[in-house]
Amino acid sequence: MLFITSNKGKFDEAYEIGKKYGFEIEWRKEKYEEFQGDSLEEIAYKSALALVNKIKEPFFIEDSGLFINALNGFPGPYSSYVFKTIGNDGILRLMEGVENRKAKFIAVIAYFDGSRVRIFNGEVEGEISREKRGDKGFGYDPVFLYGDKTFAELGEEKNEVSHRRRALERFFESIMADG
Amino acid sequence: MLFITSNKGKFDEAYEIGKKYGFEIEWRKEKYEEFQGDSLEEIAYKSALALVNKIKEPFFIEDSGLFINALNGFPGPYSSYVFKTIGNDGILRLMEGVENRKAKFIAVIAYFDGSRVRIFNGEVEGEISREKRGDKGFGYDPVFLYGDKTFAELGEEKNEVSHRRRALERFFESIMADG
Repeated sequence: MLFITSNKGKFDEAYEIGKKYGFEIEWRKEKYEEFQGDSLEEIAYKSALALVNKIKEPFFIEDSGLFINALNGFPGPYSSYVFKTIGNDGILRLMEGVENRKAKFIAVIAYFDGSRVRIFNGEVEGEISREKRGDKGFGYDPVFLYGDKTFAELGEEKNEVSHRRRALERFFESIMADG
Repeated sequence: MLFITSNKGKFDEAYEIGKKYGFEIEWRKEKYEEFQGDSLEEIAYKSALALVNKIKEPFFIEDSGLFINALNGFPGPYSSYVFKTIGNDGILRLMEGVENRKAKFIAVIAYFDGSRVRIFNGEVEGEISREKRGDKGFGYDPVFLYGDKTFAELGEEKNEVSHRRRALERFFESIMADG
């Protein structure tokens, strides 16, 4: 099956996990149109559905975001745009003096199995740190505390517990169970 | 021609301005799918193009956003989502201690004339206030300073100078010039 993404890191991770489950993932390096929506699930579903007109064989896409409880889920589905504009400094500023620091990363996979689109997701719960820490990872990793370390301090270990890993595992387990 | 919007206030404003130019605007109260994109222009263009498959007669859609210079254009194309989550308090917090307070509202109209989609825009420049002021208007109006008053203090006067008004006027002038 095809993984449609312009991000090589995402492809490599999916490829490795897929292999463990006996699936051969092929990289279709391509940008696709994303819809707007109130949730990652809605966005991924609509975006995959629109791709079905172009791509007839099985494929999946993936999208992820950071959801901060005290900020009503912000930056959520628009995490990537928010990161490009106000970045981690903006997040820390919005969280100054805020006691409830709970947040989660969510990854969503939309899979077209040849006849319909199905959604799988994975989450990891954590907290927003008081300052940026660590130089591994990317995006919001330096402000996302998992236990007493940020994702940017964890490095490789992060991949063992990440939202993306969980979504991929659920996805592969489910389609393996279908035969 | 049809104005496709779920917002009655927007329709009323367009209807009144259209009348001055001799155009009869009809309200199609409908939500439509919006794409993601780096600019309002890109989003409106793509969203209108997708609607062309469903609607054969001339129509237009409108989208607008607040662009803050010191925040790299944030909240920009996702102003509505940002307002729902962090609101004006979030904007003021991000702007605490920031000297450069320049911002603009941008409105974009995408018009399908029966054969192609054309884009018109309108802008109004202002500054982000130090605190919320005024109880008229909606959205970011209480933090958007135009001269020494916020849009939420201006009330009706705002409609005379607003980005939406400017975009609508340019739009109607242009299609009138085309005959």
